[in-house]
Amino acid sequence: MAGSNRTGQDQQTSDGLALGIDLGGTKVALALVAADGTIRHRCRVETEADAGADRVIEDITRAGKELVDKADDELTAIGAGVAGQVDSHAGIVRTTPNLEGWDDVPLAERLENAFGVPAAITNDLNAITLGEQAHGAGKGYDDLVVVFVGTGVGGGVITGGRLVEGTGGYAGEIGHTTLIADGRDCTCRSRGCLEAYVGGWAIAARARDAAREDEAAGKELVRLGGSIGSIEEITAETVDRAATAGDPLARRLIEETGRLLGFGLVSVIHTFNPRRVVLGGGVIDGMPDLVPTATEVVQENAMKVFLENLEIAPAALGDDAGVIGAARWARIRGAGTTSEDT
Amino acid sequence: MAGSNRTGQDQQTSDGLALGIDLGGTKVALALVAADGTIRHRCRVETEADAGADRVIEDITRAGKELVDKADDELTAIGAGVAGQVDSHAGIVRTTPNLEGWDDVPLAERLENAFGVPAAITNDLNAITLGEQAHGAGKGYDDLVVVFVGTGVGGGVITGGRLVEGTGGYAGEIGHTTLIADGRDCTCRSRGCLEAYVGGWAIAARARDAAREDEAAGKELVRLGGSIGSIEEITAETVDRAATAGDPLARRLIEETGRLLGFGLVSVIHTFNPRRVVLGGGVIDGMPDLVPTATEVVQENAMKVFLENLEIAPAALGDDAGVIGAARWARIRGAGTTSEDT
Repeated sequence: MAGSNRTGQDQQTSDGLALGIDLGGTKVALALVAADGTIRHRCRVETEADAGADRVIEDITRAGKELVDKADDELTAIGAGVAGQVDSHAGIVRTTPNLEGWDDVPLAERLENAFGVPAAITNDLNAITLGEQAHGAGKGYDDLVVVFVGTGVGGGVITGGRLVEGTGGYAGEIGHTTLIADGRDCTCRSRGCLEAYVGGWAIAARARDAAREDEAAGKELVRLGGSIGSIEEITAETVDRAATAGDPLARRLIEETGRLLGFGLVSVIHTFNPRRVVLGGGVIDGMPDLVPTATEVVQENAMKVFLENLEIAPAALGDDAGVIGAARWARIRGAGTTSEDT
Repeated sequence: MAGSNRTGQDQQTSDGLALGIDLGGTKVALALVAADGTIRHRCRVETEADAGADRVIEDITRAGKELVDKADDELTAIGAGVAGQVDSHAGIVRTTPNLEGWDDVPLAERLENAFGVPAAITNDLNAITLGEQAHGAGKGYDDLVVVFVGTGVGGGVITGGRLVEGTGGYAGEIGHTTLIADGRDCTCRSRGCLEAYVGGWAIAARARDAAREDEAAGKELVRLGGSIGSIEEITAETVDRAATAGDPLARRLIEETGRLLGFGLVSVIHTFNPRRVVLGGGVIDGMPDLVPTATEVVQENAMKVFLENLEIAPAALGDDAGVIGAARWARIRGAGTTSEDT
């Protein structure tokens, strides 16, 4: 054995580097990632939402090639996580809610042509999930659900060690599971989705509705939330600041949001029987009371056998999860198989 | 090639027979199933809900051995689908809502000891799902969700060709996903589950509530529903009969139930991106208006990319799905691997 493979570093070198791309609404993060998940080189490209796919792909290509030029090791694969509905089987971005000009773009093929290595794409939350599973809060877990609550709500699921993709690759839209049937309008076509209650935009909308309903309480929330003049300007941050300042309406809204998130997690838990649920995203980070409240609802409502080994944990990789996971997806898919390397 | 394996029958013979067991609340169905899914011999054993596990396992063993004695081919494996929470990894029945004395029963081991062949167990809906996937309405589908609406609501999920089991084997409880957060009490520990609105017991409870709220309409429902004397005796069948006779409250309840089921299916579809959703169970069969109403809600509310290849189809194997699927589970697990044979 000795001499055949002297160090782990040799092993990584022989596996080369994968370029991981996290393509969001306002920025693209790129990183060259070694097989052990360490980031060797990274950069960011600002994008404009209406720049269109051609322009963004050009920018990505230029930035990616600059990274590759810096690296000592060979580029072996490219992976991208895209905020939108992505046909992960065909490598096509189908629709992007926050970016214009990205309908039916064969991104995997475009990246392959630009870089001359195999490319694989998936949606941004699936990439984050793959990253957290390999190197973050989901490390070692074969049954894992990741839920990110930011402006919107996204999810990714690993079951039996494999990413749940579904027939078109669109699976894992936990944010668009029903929380209150026929309830509040969502940004998708449905009504009453989890996102339509606990996403940042929805917390703001619920707060504005509540403030209009009880104008005195609403004005107090606006006053304590600071830096805005009217009920119509309330955002999730306003609610957060007002709650921190002790505003009763804001506190009630956050308590309600935590409970609603909890009932959403009950769905996820009864559906997947995960060993671990990883929670992340701006709203989770910004409103620390949400997770304990949601956890209490889970403890009270989920069936007992589902609670036996359940852990609820915060995401661990921050903004790196997306690029690390996208690079991992490239390695999984680049091997010419859909089976995971876990 | 010729001569090496002259007929399909030879192939089946060499694979032997698997004993499939469908263990429900009031009866146990047993069948000896060939590798191609055909049932060679079958029988039923009546059980009493309070008979306890020892007695039921004795009865199953006796009946199973009689079947094996009749068969020409060798018994190679046993599989059971049990109505309850089943640790499919450890082979243990954890809890059964409708059977007494089944807490933490190592059923797989007991069956292995009794028959001398490998045994594997799972819950009843997972068995049905495996049966429908191999030989019924899910044949050829690698991304499949099965939802059965009877007195309760159960589900099973195949994603990427594999049964979703979860860390303890309890996954797929679609009936206990949240439909209306903090809503009606469910039979599980939660509130507002899909089952708490569309399960047979819940349709009856909703009808009784509606009848109490509008007594004139309630009395009319009771009259047209026939064969009962009071609002307190309303069952799902009463609602069905009254609706058929043109009762407006009963029709409204069924319309509502169909819409609620539709929002439950939106959750399932956004979560799993299935190619096909298979619907079955007594309530689905007994109230034929539910499926078109639910399908309409899905068409109106699910994101378009999820609808592209989606099919909603009725279950095809009837009562045979459970035993056929249990036998298939035995073959999958008996091979000493968790990977599917599909």
